[in-house]
Amino acid sequence: MKKLLTGLFLLFSQINLMAQSSENYIQYVNPLIGTQKMGHTFPGATVPFGAVQLSPDTDQQPHNIGGKYNKNTYKYCAGYNYDDREIVGFSHTHFSGTGHSDLGDFLIMPTVGELQLEPGDKNSPKSGFRSAFSHKNETAEPNYYKVLLDDDGILAEMTTTERVGFHQYTFPESENSHIILDLMHGIYNYDDKNVWTFVRVESDRRIVGYRQTNGWARTRTVYFAMEFSKPFKNYGFKNYETQNYKGFWRKFDQTKNFPEAAGKQIRAYFDFKTAKDEKIQVKFALSPVSTTGALNNLKTETPDWDFEKIKKTGQDAWRKELGKIAVTAPTRDDLVNFYTALYHTFLSPTVYMDTDGKYKGLDQNVHQARGFTNYTTFSLWDTYRALHPFFNIVQPRRNREMINSMLAHYDQSVHKMLPVWSHYANENWCMIGYHSVSVISDAIVKGNTTGIDAEKALAAMTQTARTKYYDGLEYYMQMGYVPEDKNSSSVSKTLEYAYDDWAIAQAAKKLGKTAIYDEFIKRSENWKNVYDSSVGFTRPKRSDGKFAEKFDPLKTEGQGFIEGNSWNYSLYVPHNPEKMIEMMGGKQKFAAHLDELFTMHLPDEFFAETEDITREGIIGNYIHGNEPSHHVAYLYNWTDAPWKTQEKVRMILKHQYTAAPDGLGGNDDCGQMSAWFLFSTLGFYPVAPGSDQYQIGSPAIKTAVLKLENGKTLTIEARNQSDKNVYVEKVTINGREINRRFLTHADIMNGGRLTFQMSDKPKM
Amino acid sequence: MKKLLTGLFLLFSQINLMAQSSENYIQYVNPLIGTQKMGHTFPGATVPFGAVQLSPDTDQQPHNIGGKYNKNTYKYCAGYNYDDREIVGFSHTHFSGTGHSDLGDFLIMPTVGELQLEPGDKNSPKSGFRSAFSHKNETAEPNYYKVLLDDDGILAEMTTTERVGFHQYTFPESENSHIILDLMHGIYNYDDKNVWTFVRVESDRRIVGYRQTNGWARTRTVYFAMEFSKPFKNYGFKNYETQNYKGFWRKFDQTKNFPEAAGKQIRAYFDFKTAKDEKIQVKFALSPVSTTGALNNLKTETPDWDFEKIKKTGQDAWRKELGKIAVTAPTRDDLVNFYTALYHTFLSPTVYMDTDGKYKGLDQNVHQARGFTNYTTFSLWDTYRALHPFFNIVQPRRNREMINSMLAHYDQSVHKMLPVWSHYANENWCMIGYHSVSVISDAIVKGNTTGIDAEKALAAMTQTARTKYYDGLEYYMQMGYVPEDKNSSSVSKTLEYAYDDWAIAQAAKKLGKTAIYDEFIKRSENWKNVYDSSVGFTRPKRSDGKFAEKFDPLKTEGQGFIEGNSWNYSLYVPHNPEKMIEMMGGKQKFAAHLDELFTMHLPDEFFAETEDITREGIIGNYIHGNEPSHHVAYLYNWTDAPWKTQEKVRMILKHQYTAAPDGLGGNDDCGQMSAWFLFSTLGFYPVAPGSDQYQIGSPAIKTAVLKLENGKTLTIEARNQSDKNVYVEKVTINGREINRRFLTHADIMNGGRLTFQMSDKPKM
Repeated sequence: MKKLLTGLFLLFSQINLMAQSSENYIQYVNPLIGTQKMGHTFPGATVPFGAVQLSPDTDQQPHNIGGKYNKNTYKYCAGYNYDDREIVGFSHTHFSGTGHSDLGDFLIMPTVGELQLEPGDKNSPKSGFRSAFSHKNETAEPNYYKVLLDDDGILAEMTTTERVGFHQYTFPESENSHIILDLMHGIYNYDDKNVWTFVRVESDRRIVGYRQTNGWARTRTVYFAMEFSKPFKNYGFKNYETQNYKGFWRKFDQTKNFPEAAGKQIRAYFDFKTAKDEKIQVKFALSPVSTTGALNNLKTETPDWDFEKIKKTGQDAWRKELGKIAVTAPTRDDLVNFYTALYHTFLSPTVYMDTDGKYKGLDQNVHQARGFTNYTTFSLWDTYRALHPFFNIVQPRRNREMINSMLAHYDQSVHKMLPVWSHYANENWCMIGYHSVSVISDAIVKGNTTGIDAEKALAAMTQTARTKYYDGLEYYMQMGYVPEDKNSSSVSKTLEYAYDDWAIAQAAKKLGKTAIYDEFIKRSENWKNVYDSSVGFTRPKRSDGKFAEKFDPLKTEGQGFIEGNSWNYSLYVPHNPEKMIEMMGGKQKFAAHLDELFTMHLPDEFFAETEDITREGIIGNYIHGNEPSHHVAYLYNWTDAPWKTQEKVRMILKHQYTAAPDGLGGNDDCGQMSAWFLFSTLGFYPVAPGSDQYQIGSPAIKTAVLKLENGKTLTIEARNQSDKNVYVEKVTINGREINRRFLTHADIMNGGRLTFQMSDKPKM
Repeated sequence: MKKLLTGLFLLFSQINLMAQSSENYIQYVNPLIGTQKMGHTFPGATVPFGAVQLSPDTDQQPHNIGGKYNKNTYKYCAGYNYDDREIVGFSHTHFSGTGHSDLGDFLIMPTVGELQLEPGDKNSPKSGFRSAFSHKNETAEPNYYKVLLDDDGILAEMTTTERVGFHQYTFPESENSHIILDLMHGIYNYDDKNVWTFVRVESDRRIVGYRQTNGWARTRTVYFAMEFSKPFKNYGFKNYETQNYKGFWRKFDQTKNFPEAAGKQIRAYFDFKTAKDEKIQVKFALSPVSTTGALNNLKTETPDWDFEKIKKTGQDAWRKELGKIAVTAPTRDDLVNFYTALYHTFLSPTVYMDTDGKYKGLDQNVHQARGFTNYTTFSLWDTYRALHPFFNIVQPRRNREMINSMLAHYDQSVHKMLPVWSHYANENWCMIGYHSVSVISDAIVKGNTTGIDAEKALAAMTQTARTKYYDGLEYYMQMGYVPEDKNSSSVSKTLEYAYDDWAIAQAAKKLGKTAIYDEFIKRSENWKNVYDSSVGFTRPKRSDGKFAEKFDPLKTEGQGFIEGNSWNYSLYVPHNPEKMIEMMGGKQKFAAHLDELFTMHLPDEFFAETEDITREGIIGNYIHGNEPSHHVAYLYNWTDAPWKTQEKVRMILKHQYTAAPDGLGGNDDCGQMSAWFLFSTLGFYPVAPGSDQYQIGSPAIKTAVLKLENGKTLTIEARNQSDKNVYVEKVTINGREINRRFLTHADIMNGGRLTFQMSDKPKM
């Protein structure tokens, strides 16, 4: 009886929580933010962490033209560019905020009139199935996207479940309406990216198949099942490389009403007769496993044809997720920025398994996820910094599942390595370091490990960090640094390995593994080996032990660095700022050095080398649009001028995040830029994941109520906060003032009331 | 207790049967028969119906050179050509006797000295890893193949289990020994046949991966797991199309000791130090499902490293299978021909599922075979004639499983059609007709249906026969024939559809489905519509109802026929010879017509049009090397001169099958040519599968004891038989003379004694 009562109590508590969460925060989310310039976000429909992210693509640029890199391809990392005036169609998979790309699977486009199976040319809407549109006829909300396709007067609407895209097209009256399924379309189309395509028309409403690509993911297959709300009249394929049956294909007319096709370059069309304002709906399910899996996902998640219901279910999921942080702030734009950032942090990693728990692993075998949801798209060089630490607070269960997904990757890895940058059962090796270890260490140190085999996780971390053939690691282990003459970006690698090693040591310490702690805490000091005290910067070192002669701390390329020059990267010792500051001449000199970073002018010739950011994405020579500096504004906390942290953080929040399509100064990088915004807006930041400390900055909200998964609530209050009152006078936790410049993880997770007393005067 | 005793009794019976079967019939099998000229058999190692058929390939010819068909490719349908003087390596999959080809997966080649990763040029052994060999150093037995590779003095031996190839290479002393794994090699290499390859080196002894091809099978993937008996020192890949990681591949040296590769054109090598006469063994398992499946097959079937044990187990399996017919015959060559033919009939269809019953289906999904073993490679246009009827006698269980495999194909077919010519989860549509229906009907009519859902099978047969868009079938259904101006090979198709329809009708009759019987018995008369009584031949008819004017009964190409001219094809009414003979002028005229067929001279210009056969493969204008005439010699049984059947059959046996590498006058076609030999040698032949009758010919054995699966034994005795005594004077069954020209299926399956009294004089 007691058990029952407890159960009922829990049930009521949950209902109560749901009720609280049902405030309509989705009104503040504008998915168009970041779709212009460098944000590389997408405006389409998805549920939180959804496997299907269904979004309009405004163009498709080949990765190479005439053997040379096509710079335009970069604009289309997320398929959609706000400046474009045409939509080529709606595809089902997109990265959010990446600087390299892939995906764009299975483009659907409705048309009327003479069938056109070519997308046509940019700025020439009638040249193909693409259509003009205008932003005034466009609506983007969480899990809902609507646009009027001007050319044929078709209203396109879309919503999703986790694994199913749900399209609704309102047609004009026509004997000659079409829905095109373009299986060639993709994002970042390398030559020969489409390896194989297989399609079956299983009835007059159902199509299944798969597409295998060799893009950023080298060996990637996505399976689908598609269903129309009404039967098509006729259908057909155009097989652009004519991969017909060898020898005996003359038995059939394979172009029309022939139910199968296979090859590399295929487009399909389906013909309908439509009445005025007739809606044709399409369900489009994905699977990482098989067409059977996709069909099963379709049946499980979208058993009926109710567009509004699907939309509402997904938006309710968003209301619940967004409601985990209930914010009040001075202006509506503040709320838009906040909830859009929160939205962007909840887009990836994405669910990567069927409803029955099956998924394809890194070994290309089908695995069963037991006890966790499997996720993919780990942009770890970015997201270890703030996104995963943010998840440890607001998505702890999902973060644990992501870690279990990373451990599954490790189990399946022929290298016996944790993911570096992985997506869709592939390691793409993007960027540097082995930052999985940071994500896992952060969870271990913060005690977020229920359901994770922590000892196994530690073994995976150490094994990864000892992979000799990985990216200069053998030299690093032997010599204490990566020599520039042996491996490029050698300083960046040395610095990041040293931090990662520290993170491993912290996990080992927590788990009582002294030998591992000793090994890796020693390795974590390797950053010192690339610091040249004669110039006050880290600097590439050769294998003969001498620093490279060619050196300019403003330069990046070929100078031992990547996505950050020595001015920025030299500050990358997040795990030991005290020692770094000491080596750089002490607190005062260091503070002045930081001041110079934020105020100096980076000449255009050097800016041209920075990647992934707009000119607005930098402040002085501080480059917020790339990640290596994300902790830098918080380093003043180790000097005598923590108020400069407060000031700089607010300046960055104001300049780098605005409520407009071009509002992001750099790639959102799968939510890392947004996670920086969220932490900093709430008033604290995890400078060194793997520590349980968050450096105090300057909160930019009025109040924020965090509804934690452990059932507790943390209310953050920034009293007297305004654009001018950016300085923290006093911090209290449940009324007791704290005399430190950081919060601990426990301070947050225990709930209660965290109060910042703000002022317009720095506290000296 | 009674049950136990019965059990023991059964056990003893089985032991007894095994003892009987253990006579070493494998001594009479010469796998080299058919490897020269047109037989297209392979000499390598396999167990009966094995998934792995591990055999030397002597060359690899591209299907096209400069856009034109390369005639040489045809010689290599089975990978090995007896005339060649070099072996390029040993691959794991081969068709036996086909006239079109595919497969040749995963070529292994041992070498010594400087590593050569190119196969080199024909007749230039030192130009690559290929090696000279000579037939005097070559041994081919069931499940054992041995050859000395002259170039490096390596002795190569191989044996297999159902799913694992077991290699044993005896090396000379060398610091520099290699085993090459060529993942590019294949048979019938179309441009771009290799769609994708994926390889992982999982330890210093184990490699796994897969190869996906677009050949005769359009979408085909074969997975493997490979294990060495000792660790390799070093290894590496050459990726001929450099499908590296996009962007970040510079992190590694991927050519040496880097454990993964993917792309289209890959070769791998493994280095060893070898002592004099050191044996290195390789286990190589295949799977249609996954590398996990392959590894599981490897562990299940070859848990240890005992070459001799594996060889013996497989040879014991052959002894058992070959022992199902214990023959005595006048000469050793007779026995060699008989047991080699029996061997060839037991090579395919091949097992196509993992040890756990999983297999890839036609829909490219993974399925679980429940209650049957799944088979692939259905060369049905050939094998429906005699091979499957032969299986109904000597492999009834396997034939039922093959039918269940065909029904699984039907379930998975988007066309809802039974297989036409299928292999490796693909329909290749080769040749004409829908002869699955004949195979199934034959089993139904003969009562061999335990475990088959006969009603479902009938539904599959009718559904297949009503597929309008298939190969002229809509015209056939509407007009009663395929019009030549609408579809090529129209007469051949009309004739074969008519026979197939009759087979459906027979099954319907047996199952009491009158409406279906009526529908299809009517369709079975359609052959009459293409018979032109004015010329006495079948002749292409146009859609206007008139016979085509251009017509020469000696021609094949463009004349309404395929693999047989009108002289041969006009006789293709196996289900109603009486009516055919009546229409052709009655018994006497018809017998004279047959005489002319066997004695006339086919001018070279017409011979050039026949496919797949040697000049020796024809007798007069009777073309035994192709299948449409396989029943023709038996048609004299419907005239007043059945002795001519006896005479002709013996002539064909003598001329078309000899105990030498060039001993087969045409493609063995997955055992059909051999099955014709076996039936005819035993004295009877199934002219119309779907009937329970076998036409009596002329037995060429002394005695043959058939140990039937139903526990009964049929002893066939040909008294007084010799090369001269080819005429049947009297036939008795269990001592009772029969006064008919045919045996029934029951006559055989009831066992007992079937005696032919032979004579040198025709019985008029």
